[in-house]
Amino acid sequence: MRKINFNAGPSAMPLPALELAQKEMLNFEGTGMSIMEHSHRGKDFLRVHEEAKALLRELMEIPSTHEVLFMQGGASMQFALVPMNFLKEGKSADYVVTGTWGKKALEEAQRVGKARAAWQQTDAQGRYVRVPKQSEVSFDAHACYVHTTSNNTLYGSQYWEFLDTGKLWQVCDMSSDILSRRVEVSQFGLIYAGAQKNLGPAGLVVVVVHKAFLEEAAKQLPLIFRYATFAEHDSLLNTPSTFGIYMLRNCLRWLKAEGGVSAMAERNEKKARALYAVLDELPDFYVAPVEKESRSQMNVVFHLKNPALDEAFVKAAAAENMAGVKGHRSTGGMRASIYNAVNQQDVEALAAFMRRFAR
Amino acid sequence: MRKINFNAGPSAMPLPALELAQKEMLNFEGTGMSIMEHSHRGKDFLRVHEEAKALLRELMEIPSTHEVLFMQGGASMQFALVPMNFLKEGKSADYVVTGTWGKKALEEAQRVGKARAAWQQTDAQGRYVRVPKQSEVSFDAHACYVHTTSNNTLYGSQYWEFLDTGKLWQVCDMSSDILSRRVEVSQFGLIYAGAQKNLGPAGLVVVVVHKAFLEEAAKQLPLIFRYATFAEHDSLLNTPSTFGIYMLRNCLRWLKAEGGVSAMAERNEKKARALYAVLDELPDFYVAPVEKESRSQMNVVFHLKNPALDEAFVKAAAAENMAGVKGHRSTGGMRASIYNAVNQQDVEALAAFMRRFAR
Repeated sequence: MRKINFNAGPSAMPLPALELAQKEMLNFEGTGMSIMEHSHRGKDFLRVHEEAKALLRELMEIPSTHEVLFMQGGASMQFALVPMNFLKEGKSADYVVTGTWGKKALEEAQRVGKARAAWQQTDAQGRYVRVPKQSEVSFDAHACYVHTTSNNTLYGSQYWEFLDTGKLWQVCDMSSDILSRRVEVSQFGLIYAGAQKNLGPAGLVVVVVHKAFLEEAAKQLPLIFRYATFAEHDSLLNTPSTFGIYMLRNCLRWLKAEGGVSAMAERNEKKARALYAVLDELPDFYVAPVEKESRSQMNVVFHLKNPALDEAFVKAAAAENMAGVKGHRSTGGMRASIYNAVNQQDVEALAAFMRRFAR
Repeated sequence: MRKINFNAGPSAMPLPALELAQKEMLNFEGTGMSIMEHSHRGKDFLRVHEEAKALLRELMEIPSTHEVLFMQGGASMQFALVPMNFLKEGKSADYVVTGTWGKKALEEAQRVGKARAAWQQTDAQGRYVRVPKQSEVSFDAHACYVHTTSNNTLYGSQYWEFLDTGKLWQVCDMSSDILSRRVEVSQFGLIYAGAQKNLGPAGLVVVVVHKAFLEEAAKQLPLIFRYATFAEHDSLLNTPSTFGIYMLRNCLRWLKAEGGVSAMAERNEKKARALYAVLDELPDFYVAPVEKESRSQMNVVFHLKNPALDEAFVKAAAAENMAGVKGHRSTGGMRASIYNAVNQQDVEALAAFMRRFAR
């Protein structure tokens, strides 16, 4: 029996995407070999590569001003590649730090050059519990770019509306909410996302970058670190994660068949509402630290008022076939990650369990 | 029907490794989820991670002086990471350039700092056709390291005996012949290998590095580029290519069951002998450009004396269920890549076909 999977990433994948991979594992589309055994320069893999790109363009409504790149190394490698490519000598970059990953991105940038936190705020316990309003942030007018994190996997906050960075390029880490809702891509100079939440397996990174921003990038870097090289070579400068791209394609096919991003957005809102309703109903038992207007639709973070019950909660959830409800090791408490591949029924099961457990 | 697969990489994988992945795709070891859906910090994945490392240590006889790391980005990313970590300001590194990949490694190093070709030789047509003898190379006594390529996938040459770099650290790209024969790991400061030939799927990179060499590495780099960070975090600084590591484990299990590296070495020698015998028998029809004492056991490179027959050769091979015999787009001609997962029977089929085609 398949588990109800609330893992934060790697996380639940759409069953049809996995079933197709299973079916084709020894013989991809009658070619007599696994997709993993195909050359990345052969027509069979290239068909997959093109389909994945085209689906992403279609589903995200990516304008022709932007390139789609497939890279490796996780979002963490993007933390370093962004400043290496775009942080100019003598200039600085602005980071809006709304959680652990944004903080790590800032720290890597500071190993490369000059960067500052344009906004950073935690509560009395050192937890990040909200994202800023537009009026709270003032940017360095000469910043090479502004870095934001659309959704904070670890603390469970999310921008409901993105910041307007005016004439400054906005670079956004969308690892944990890409394709969960409609995003106006033209607002961004660069979007990056590790695949292991809403896109596919770990190891693949999707980058969407404005061509004009690319032209500003450093030209003296090793080729493998330059976004421009990936754009010139259609992400085939060297061997990409071919199986990762194949699984991305499978996941995007599923997403399209399910009604695309607008259908996902509707479902995600409904799923999140079901869980936050329980937290708001039972404030004497559950605590939801994130401010209401910053609550994430992807990662519902909470803890039990009585932490002595934590272990019992995790155990009881496991007994009901649910996995992944334990919070990040750095925050403790609980977290239910409800990405696109987690369905309403699974979320309702968790909501019902939470009510029962509180009683 | 499965193809006879002579792809150069990504390439043929052991059938049992794929069959296990197929069987477990929706439910890894009764956990109710795919290995791709497991957290990289959970006990189920960590068991796989540990097993892969332990098998690699056992099969390669890696001494305790060396760390085993799992990285991403392909060997091409190692081309940049090696000089970033080990090339010191004001000093230089020596590259023994025996093919296209060694040349690319040198060029990336020169984008990072100072590096030179300690040896580089092509024939009158600009082809790399051999590796140097020890007596032909003289190293810079102050070089930060010496970079070598154990096997040249593209041109089909290989060191039968590695160069002795004396007190200098030897860094070796073993992407295309790792685990194909016994290697004395203690001879090397650092070994790296993209997985997609003898280890598993594209996207995973295996690094074996001497701890004392690690201590010499630069400490000011972004964390994601430092081998030392990967060593400290057991390759779990960020989310690794979890499915890649799982497939590596499956491939290593197969390799061990087949008798380990010594059994592979014996088979690989026999396989290569079968193909080179045809080339030597029919010099009026086939041309083998690589010098005999540098011939690769992994990539048998040849061309037809009459290039007008190239297309017919590829077509006729395809008609006999064989794929991947076409040479690299930069060299033309033919190439049969016969990594560990390609068996004697498949190679004999190719040899027989080559004899028939020549007639």
